Amino acid sequence: MSAKRYLFTPGPTPVPPEVLSALAEPVVHHRGPDYRALFGECLERLRAVYRTAGDVLVFTSSGTGAMESAVANLCSPGDRVVVVSAGAFGERWRALATAYGADVQAVEYEWGETPRAEDLAAKLEDAGGAKAVFLTHSETSTGVVADVQALAAAAKGSGALVVVDAVSSLGAVPLETDAWGLDVVASGSQKALMTPPGIGLVSVSEAAYAALGSSPRFYFDWERTRAGQAKLDSAFTPAVSLVRGLDVALGLLLEEGLEAAFDRHVRLGRACREGAKAMGLELFSPDEDRSAVVTAIRAPDGIDATELVRGLRDRFGITIANGQSTLKGKIFRIGHIGYFDVFDITTALAAVELVLADLGAEIERGVAVTRALEAYEERARV
Amino acid sequence: MSAKRYLFTPGPTPVPPEVLSALAEPVVHHRGPDYRALFGECLERLRAVYRTAGDVLVFTSSGTGAMESAVANLCSPGDRVVVVSAGAFGERWRALATAYGADVQAVEYEWGETPRAEDLAAKLEDAGGAKAVFLTHSETSTGVVADVQALAAAAKGSGALVVVDAVSSLGAVPLETDAWGLDVVASGSQKALMTPPGIGLVSVSEAAYAALGSSPRFYFDWERTRAGQAKLDSAFTPAVSLVRGLDVALGLLLEEGLEAAFDRHVRLGRACREGAKAMGLELFSPDEDRSAVVTAIRAPDGIDATELVRGLRDRFGITIANGQSTLKGKIFRIGHIGYFDVFDITTALAAVELVLADLGAEIERGVAVTRALEAYEERARV
Repeated sequence: MSAKRYLFTPGPTPVPPEVLSALAEPVVHHRGPDYRALFGECLERLRAVYRTAGDVLVFTSSGTGAMESAVANLCSPGDRVVVVSAGAFGERWRALATAYGADVQAVEYEWGETPRAEDLAAKLEDAGGAKAVFLTHSETSTGVVADVQALAAAAKGSGALVVVDAVSSLGAVPLETDAWGLDVVASGSQKALMTPPGIGLVSVSEAAYAALGSSPRFYFDWERTRAGQAKLDSAFTPAVSLVRGLDVALGLLLEEGLEAAFDRHVRLGRACREGAKAMGLELFSPDEDRSAVVTAIRAPDGIDATELVRGLRDRFGITIANGQSTLKGKIFRIGHIGYFDVFDITTALAAVELVLADLGAEIERGVAVTRALEAYEERARV
Repeated sequence: MSAKRYLFTPGPTPVPPEVLSALAEPVVHHRGPDYRALFGECLERLRAVYRTAGDVLVFTSSGTGAMESAVANLCSPGDRVVVVSAGAFGERWRALATAYGADVQAVEYEWGETPRAEDLAAKLEDAGGAKAVFLTHSETSTGVVADVQALAAAAKGSGALVVVDAVSSLGAVPLETDAWGLDVVASGSQKALMTPPGIGLVSVSEAAYAALGSSPRFYFDWERTRAGQAKLDSAFTPAVSLVRGLDVALGLLLEEGLEAAFDRHVRLGRACREGAKAMGLELFSPDEDRSAVVTAIRAPDGIDATELVRGLRDRFGITIANGQSTLKGKIFRIGHIGYFDVFDITTALAAVELVLADLGAEIERGVAVTRALEAYEERARV
């Protein structure tokens, strides 16, 4: 028997069998009625997941492509923008805005800190306002989920457009595109939307369409994409197989119900944290229900997280994530986004426990799995 | 029984069952050893298909994304470039270069004409040279396959970089990246590479890397992508399922052998043309072996090609392509790229014959299929 594989990273994430089998269906032409019906349904479902009455534009790209579309369409060289950064994906906004020649002001935190709306408000006041504020909802590198509603309110108060990276959060934790006044929300297929990577998504408000900048763009041009989608068409040949898979996955998510999915993620996060703490590990990500996307855990004293990651992979075919950048080797991250249930958490914890013990870590044996199962059953506190 | 579907457009094209089933395999992490082995094999196979010892960069995008990468990486605002345009995809080069602020000089032909190397040489001499020349190998909108080797020689003679759109040609008709001195060759997964749409490809010569321009770019940045691939990594989460499918498809293509595949496409094109002529139709694309990718045929007098396309679709689940732009309704196009054999051609011809007859066209009945089968068996003349 070939070894089983377990994908417990914060993306790409496991894909349900219904979605995998949809990917294997014959390719249809993207301008025929079969695809138009499928694409129309998919766009409707995306609006429901985004909780917006506006457009959700679909690109064949990674989540970074969707993020770049926001910068390329909104930022002209010299435009002042504010980036809130507390990890690798905040830094990605900064790198993107810098590549397009924006005047980038940063509200900067140590990796692992949680951004505060008052810091953003103060920066915007100091700077005399900004065209746009770039936020990260779920900072996948640290496990922190920011209070985007409060941050957005601070940005709106200054008249700035609000642009949110919700790549790893959309469909896992509450996000209200319209009710929170989020002008642009970028996401991707490969996290809570339970589809293989390859589709980048971006919602665009009318205010954002009214504020288009002068940077060169073609493939990621919003107006061209919007005009195509208005006719259930695509400006360029779309990834028809991935769109078919995404449509099935969105159907599964909406069938479960967004609120039920959010509750499940809260309980998955709690199970993961409680199990880790029960074996004596120290959390790096906040010990709070909002941190429901990925759990970051400090490597025990004397243990290199890289060896844990390698041990899990080589002995058990289990993939978790190492820390990124300066956190490499210091933390490890267990993703629980999308197609996850509590037994994925207990599998991850049981294997982590075993490999850590074999590496010589002083941890408590035999309690993590039971504690995780208990925590999963407790009522959500959010 | 649900109606069968036949995809006879010039892209996306039919996908072999081995490739479809690879798409349905569980998603693996793009930084783990399973994926690295797969990606390394895929890159090796791409080099073989491109006939290059250099890099083939892999993007999650349509073919247009790969084309944009060439413009974004090479063109600074004001750079003089020459676009050779004889159809919709030549126009795409012009639109891309214009979007990036290049000084675009065009060698322009009527749609359906075949570009001539001497016209390009004259334009380059008039213009006093150019940084780059943008060519279209297979102009999918008209069925013309240009003599890229001769055009490239003319461009090289002036010192310009040679950039080729080979989206619908790579793997179907001969293309020698290194031997012909092609600096950049853009392609995509969804044509002769027999994979669903979603992967954009671009080979980049050392001369092209040495000539990078100043336009803003991030997602399509060549240096970032090249640095990732040097470690069998990807700068951004790749479309792992599509890469797996592409690897299987490239294996099938190389197993057949590139020369055998080229010969098959020549014979498919000949079968399609001879069958069409046998029923009394007039070709729009050239009646020559190089035109082996898509056959463009004039709608008979008094017949709107749009009605033919709709009739094939609604009655038989067969998708062919209408003319684009001003050719809409005037021509129809049968693609025969990639996973095609002669019975796809005979099916297309038989159905076209039936629907045209029912639309009242004066065509010869009962001869096209037999003539196509005969023509397919004749030895290739190239």
